[in-house]
Amino acid sequence: MKVTPASRHEIRIGLLGCGFMGKCHSNAYKKIPYIYSPANLLPRLMVLCDQKANIVEREAACYGYEEFCTDWKELAADPRIDLFDNCGPDPVHPEPCIAALAHGKHVISEKPMAITVADARRMRDAAAAATGKAMCTFNYRFAPAVQFAKNLIAEGKIGAIYQVRVQYLQMAGHDPSLPPDKPWYSAWPHSGGLQGIGSHAIDQCRFLVGEIASVSALVRTFNKDRAITSAGCPAEVTADEGTAAVLEFANGAIGVLESSVVATGRKNYLAWEINGSRGSLRWDVEHPNSLFACLSGGSDDLLLGFTEISVTESCHPYVGAWWPQGHNLGWEHLQIIEKYHFLKAIADGGPLHPSQATFEDGYRVAVIIDAMRRSSLKGTRVAVTF
Amino acid sequence: MKVTPASRHEIRIGLLGCGFMGKCHSNAYKKIPYIYSPANLLPRLMVLCDQKANIVEREAACYGYEEFCTDWKELAADPRIDLFDNCGPDPVHPEPCIAALAHGKHVISEKPMAITVADARRMRDAAAAATGKAMCTFNYRFAPAVQFAKNLIAEGKIGAIYQVRVQYLQMAGHDPSLPPDKPWYSAWPHSGGLQGIGSHAIDQCRFLVGEIASVSALVRTFNKDRAITSAGCPAEVTADEGTAAVLEFANGAIGVLESSVVATGRKNYLAWEINGSRGSLRWDVEHPNSLFACLSGGSDDLLLGFTEISVTESCHPYVGAWWPQGHNLGWEHLQIIEKYHFLKAIADGGPLHPSQATFEDGYRVAVIIDAMRRSSLKGTRVAVTF
Amino acid sequence: MKVTPASRHEIRIGLLGCGFMGKCHSNAYKKIPYIYSPANLLPRLMVLCDQKANIVEREAACYGYEEFCTDWKELAADPRIDLFDNCGPDPVHPEPCIAALAHGKHVISEKPMAITVADARRMRDAAAAATGKAMCTFNYRFAPAVQFAKNLIAEGKIGAIYQVRVQYLQMAGHDPSLPPDKPWYSAWPHSGGLQGIGSHAIDQCRFLVGEIASVSALVRTFNKDRAITSAGCPAEVTADEGTAAVLEFANGAIGVLESSVVATGRKNYLAWEINGSRGSLRWDVEHPNSLFACLSGGSDDLLLGFTEISVTESCHPYVGAWWPQGHNLGWEHLQIIEKYHFLKAIADGGPLHPSQATFEDGYRVAVIIDAMRRSSLKGTRVAVTF
Amino acid sequence: MKVTPASRHEIRIGLLGCGFMGKCHSNAYKKIPYIYSPANLLPRLMVLCDQKANIVEREAACYGYEEFCTDWKELAADPRIDLFDNCGPDPVHPEPCIAALAHGKHVISEKPMAITVADARRMRDAAAAATGKAMCTFNYRFAPAVQFAKNLIAEGKIGAIYQVRVQYLQMAGHDPSLPPDKPWYSAWPHSGGLQGIGSHAIDQCRFLVGEIASVSALVRTFNKDRAITSAGCPAEVTADEGTAAVLEFANGAIGVLESSVVATGRKNYLAWEINGSRGSLRWDVEHPNSLFACLSGGSDDLLLGFTEISVTESCHPYVGAWWPQGHNLGWEHLQIIEKYHFLKAIADGGPLHPSQATFEDGYRVAVIIDAMRRSSLKGTRVAVTF
Repeated sequence: MKVTPASRHEIRIGLLGCGFMGKCHSNAYKKIPYIYSPANLLPRLMVLCDQKANIVEREAACYGYEEFCTDWKELAADPRIDLFDNCGPDPVHPEPCIAALAHGKHVISEKPMAITVADARRMRDAAAAATGKAMCTFNYRFAPAVQFAKNLIAEGKIGAIYQVRVQYLQMAGHDPSLPPDKPWYSAWPHSGGLQGIGSHAIDQCRFLVGEIASVSALVRTFNKDRAITSAGCPAEVTADEGTAAVLEFANGAIGVLESSVVATGRKNYLAWEINGSRGSLRWDVEHPNSLFACLSGGSDDLLLGFTEISVTESCHPYVGAWWPQGHNLGWEHLQIIEKYHFLKAIADGGPLHPSQATFEDGYRVAVIIDAMRRSSLKGTRVAVTF
Repeated sequence: MKVTPASRHEIRIGLLGCGFMGKCHSNAYKKIPYIYSPANLLPRLMVLCDQKANIVEREAACYGYEEFCTDWKELAADPRIDLFDNCGPDPVHPEPCIAALAHGKHVISEKPMAITVADARRMRDAAAAATGKAMCTFNYRFAPAVQFAKNLIAEGKIGAIYQVRVQYLQMAGHDPSLPPDKPWYSAWPHSGGLQGIGSHAIDQCRFLVGEIASVSALVRTFNKDRAITSAGCPAEVTADEGTAAVLEFANGAIGVLESSVVATGRKNYLAWEINGSRGSLRWDVEHPNSLFACLSGGSDDLLLGFTEISVTESCHPYVGAWWPQGHNLGWEHLQIIEKYHFLKAIADGGPLHPSQATFEDGYRVAVIIDAMRRSSLKGTRVAVTF
Repeated sequence: MKVTPASRHEIRIGLLGCGFMGKCHSNAYKKIPYIYSPANLLPRLMVLCDQKANIVEREAACYGYEEFCTDWKELAADPRIDLFDNCGPDPVHPEPCIAALAHGKHVISEKPMAITVADARRMRDAAAAATGKAMCTFNYRFAPAVQFAKNLIAEGKIGAIYQVRVQYLQMAGHDPSLPPDKPWYSAWPHSGGLQGIGSHAIDQCRFLVGEIASVSALVRTFNKDRAITSAGCPAEVTADEGTAAVLEFANGAIGVLESSVVATGRKNYLAWEINGSRGSLRWDVEHPNSLFACLSGGSDDLLLGFTEISVTESCHPYVGAWWPQGHNLGWEHLQIIEKYHFLKAIADGGPLHPSQATFEDGYRVAVIIDAMRRSSLKGTRVAVTF
Repeated sequence: MKVTPASRHEIRIGLLGCGFMGKCHSNAYKKIPYIYSPANLLPRLMVLCDQKANIVEREAACYGYEEFCTDWKELAADPRIDLFDNCGPDPVHPEPCIAALAHGKHVISEKPMAITVADARRMRDAAAAATGKAMCTFNYRFAPAVQFAKNLIAEGKIGAIYQVRVQYLQMAGHDPSLPPDKPWYSAWPHSGGLQGIGSHAIDQCRFLVGEIASVSALVRTFNKDRAITSAGCPAEVTADEGTAAVLEFANGAIGVLESSVVATGRKNYLAWEINGSRGSLRWDVEHPNSLFACLSGGSDDLLLGFTEISVTESCHPYVGAWWPQGHNLGWEHLQIIEKYHFLKAIADGGPLHPSQATFEDGYRVAVIIDAMRRSSLKGTRVAVTF
């Protein structure tokens, strides 16, 4: 018998950028209808936009977009589009997002939201003034284990937070004999590991521990002269390869934060440990389903230690829509969970999910990165003011 | 501009069973077109079949099936269907699969392929005589880390295999005060933990180590009298809760194998360690992206130990189609990878992927399970003959 | 000011065998007086005995023995000796121990207590008839984490035990090109990995889970023809390199047990996991201070998982006499703790520590090993009768 | 036959302080003669000194000291003493050590060597001017895994060092409702977690990575008002509970360093990770026998990852004198290994072991701690000048 299709809430999507992130977001839109079928959402892949027509058409066909274009201005103004999803390179976040907001669209900006504080502020202000909803993709907030940690903290299970250490370590640039072709060696000013991955680490701190009041940092390029690029051009690398920072939180906690694109052996290691007066939590994204929790205060100190919790039960955050216990989610699921909640807020016309990062969050991360750079240059602790 | 759709190889799918596995297979078919876009495959979700019309229609709408039905005989005979995918409960594997094969269809059977050796043999023989391709879903073979282990073994990196230990441990039945409602306590004879999950453990042994020559086993029901079911019926549990076995391999290796549905703390723990004359490997599915490898024979014994390899590089097996290094795959990806290779073999008209489990494999696992049950009853080592 | 020495209970020791175990026991005797000073024990190192006079005198001087001799009969009969400690090679356990018991001495036998059941029975009977105390050195019972596990089991914290898996894996014989010079390839019959290290694994099962009722085993020599010994003699290896067994316990639990001297990558890996109806425990001796415990039954299933407990608190078993929390004990400490409790029982004239392995335990392990060998030869499950 | 005692090099020891460290050092002296018997060292426990006569006499009897006294001045001047070992509380390190050096003795100072830079400088200068040898007990340098890491770094196995993170985390002060009786809340100025345990973390950085050029730090007391002491006195806590710092190394590396006495779940967690251009290393003292090493540059990137090396082979540093592979050493062994090398240098009349920390090292750690405190107060990066 023929199936009667459900009536679904259609959200027409225009997506800018068909690289890694474009693939990742498109995948999310295609999975939401059946994984979250009770929500009756129908993200409609309408237009894919990128610079090279032949590539963008191929990718559009691959993911099932109906149309393609090569001019983001056209996309941002397209009256048929409900949601403008900006997966373009970092310097191409501000103008398209601001234009799309001005055209009344909902907007997603990949992180880091903007390279400069000024741009980030303009984006934040544009979002505040707009009718559409806006979010910045700090997707690690939506790892079930991270949200579970957030809940445990909110319930007071670890008490007052004393200290935190967070790192985002990758290794792709570790070998000094490799040419500086990787994204973090690109030409625009101020990019590098701190923007590219350190921004996630900063966001995790703000999400889990609280607002950052001051920073003391060293931002470092270890291999300034990397022979020549693979294209044969002489290169002087200016982007940072590593950052180390001391954090002071508004609530009295202190911490250390690092980013690295030269950490041999660490493929994609976002990791943190948080120590509080009653318990501690730790997590890393190379083992994303496991939360290690030490919750003391029980009657029996003999049993104290870190428990590896497989955060895969249907009663754990976000897990119920997916697979049975012990059937792990992977990295892409964080992206899907995040996008689902944004689409649902659009469809419901209600507020964003409380864990969703806003353009205000994107702006504040930009301010903190800027404070770290200034601290590194000046050799002083820098107060963070938003 | 409008996107010109790619010309794709359509494979029309009729799927029986809309539970956990039905969801999982449907998800695979929906992801294959864009994740594996160069293959130009188009699995078309044509008919979903299950017993209750209202449920199956709802699920069909959810996943985008065009039609639904409630009679597997109708589905198996439907001339429009290319691939008959049997995700029904274990006792409903044999007749529908045999019927679909007789109708010339490609067939997928979920595991365990059949509860009795006789049924498994009939299925194996039907597949051998059929024009369609047939596979049994031992999907853990397609974990990148498992295939990588298989490759290392084939290259001689661990030398001759001496010993192996494998377990598949779950905990859902651990509490004796819980009613016996879980699948492994169902009414049909011979089901239970060994069929339900132990079959995967046996298949991993055969896939990685080689053919099993004899078994000595204990198959045990620990809690025979579980008060009453949640529906209020008195129950006597006959399905096995735990199995322990010694394995003798044709190549001279020996091993131990266990299954359990009462292993408190183990949510979905399929794990193995293989020791060879030159190296050892270990893996578990609760940390599916990590292969632990100790490969000796190098010049420097000082550095010997198990290395945690994040099997997420594009040059690792199956990973290239997915995400960058360190961006973990989850459990569902094994299912997708497996289905992709089967669809591709159908489309190409070529042989099955060498890692694909056939109905011959499904049959042999049934024979080995039967040998374990007989060994447990008789108290002797039982030679495995196929 | 001069220190007034404490009045101490002197126990005069004669020790047979100045190899690895002789060093280890002598070390224990030297540490007991000051680590356990409240007990006022004074183990007096009186006579060291071994075959070669020059070596034994050198070792006696090293450890501070007052005398040395080369004839164990002389030592076993020496009226000045209170405690006869047999650290000789396995075949030299029975006669000296029986002789020393006949001379009224307290006796320690290294494990395995005897190679044959007949010898083990004679030793057990001699101990039962003797006035002195006797113990067999299954020292892993005295790891704080093992005793803590024992306590948790006794308190019902893991409920009824369902399944257990235990391995003792070493690698020294893994390379088939190495000459068969290692102890487990020695000439006497029936020695090998099962006697040498498997005996510990069996003892851990009996200590933690309960008595073994039947076994089904494969005992295997993988590399029967190891070229020639390093001394140039042609060799045929008869000792086992690996064993795999299914265990049936008297209390209804089942399990698997393995030993291996060819497990590449495993230097000294005695490990077990025990699954019960309310919890699970696991431990390994390469990380001896950590007990992994999953104790469910609490109110909050969300937090279920294995906790790594650093068993180093002063309130944990045996730890109080040593160092502060987190200051790990090593392997030698298990030996010292064990010897202390034996000496204390001698000095007090009271019963042995309840965790101490007796000659009855040594005998039962011999019976179980024999049952495993017979099961392997006959191809049947063998009931264990003592 | 009577044993002819070896002729041994006697070193007469006077030890100040019979607490945890006194026990630990005395234990070392008692084990050295037989564990390192080829060195023919005989540390003679001559005089134990502490404030309370009844306690010190009891402890002296326990460890076998010949005499006791209650006045360190008498001990420091005692002409019979070769080695003055200062295990007294931190503020009692400078004067006794300086006096003993002036009397021509060899001197050991526990860490932190001095609370103030001025005192540390006086001690350093006294040692430089003295005829005796002097060392500061940064004993973690003598963990076999740490020395093995040091060797790998020296051999260039991890290339140029980019980044390092080190923590020393304990939990004894984590509960704000506990009275401030623990040592780190004591009355003298400037003590606390940074001096007590952070000093070890700083020393590990200097030992493994190189000299520290600047620091940016936050030194924090989280719970300033801890009700009252257990003795009933009102208390204001001034000692630091946590420190977070950014480190700049002279060789261009950067890092973060933390100490904490309030890190719930961390009993004694000194841990570091070092990332270099060709490899990475990590270690922690709660698993002291394991070094995790990722050494790239090999031909096969597919196998990259961290290897858990059990640093227990006889060819690993310091291990040969002890037990066979996989038979773990514990925390006390680091202390013994350290003392052995110092006694051997005294007996040989040669230079100190290159890994031994000198009074210069103790001084430099004091300078760095002082720089951290000043950085925390001033809010600037502080250059470290010795």
